[in-house]
Amino acid sequence: MTILYPKTDDATFDMDYYTSSHMPMLAKALGDGCKGWGAARVTTDKHVAIGWVMIDSMETFNAAMGEHGAAIMGDVANYTNQQPEVILGEVTHGD
Amino acid sequence: MTILYPKTDDATFDMDYYTSSHMPMLAKALGDGCKGWGAARVTTDKHVAIGWVMIDSMETFNAAMGEHGAAIMGDVANYTNQQPEVILGEVTHGD
Repeated sequence: MTILYPKTDDATFDMDYYTSSHMPMLAKALGDGCKGWGAARVTTDKHVAIGWVMIDSMETFNAAMGEHGAAIMGDVANYTNQQPEVILGEVTHGD
Repeated sequence: MTILYPKTDDATFDMDYYTSSHMPMLAKALGDGCKGWGAARVTTDKHVAIGWVMIDSMETFNAAMGEHGAAIMGDVANYTNQQPEVILGEVTHGD
């Protein structure tokens, strides 16, 4: 899963909170199904930040979202005024 | 670096070629500065594929693009008719 945050003129984004609190919350919700995650401050012009998580299966993702999705989405306002764009995919290579 | 390929009605994308040939070409161009890479077939509706590379520095990226950028960009037509969107960022966490 990749999460993109658009850059707008009035975009706010707390990178410290995202890296030290929000993404660990997401990783914890995924449990052992989380095979790694990352976050980056975007330097190109269309986005303010990007996050990614390697998850072992869509079943793990769906189960975690069912149980913790509301809390995770509710936390977004604590670090940004932007709407995350979620991209899901089937990994063909990852190291 | 994250690379997104938009999904259009006439989008073509050869995932096998991307995973087994194009991305290894990019990783090889980055040399020891490549700290890992991945590729995924996107299942959400706006993109057809996504790739990513962890690079040790922008200097590595710029040097590799200066030397191999034309060949790498020239290879894109071998697996897709889409224009890649390149997103660069400074990683705050990655595992």
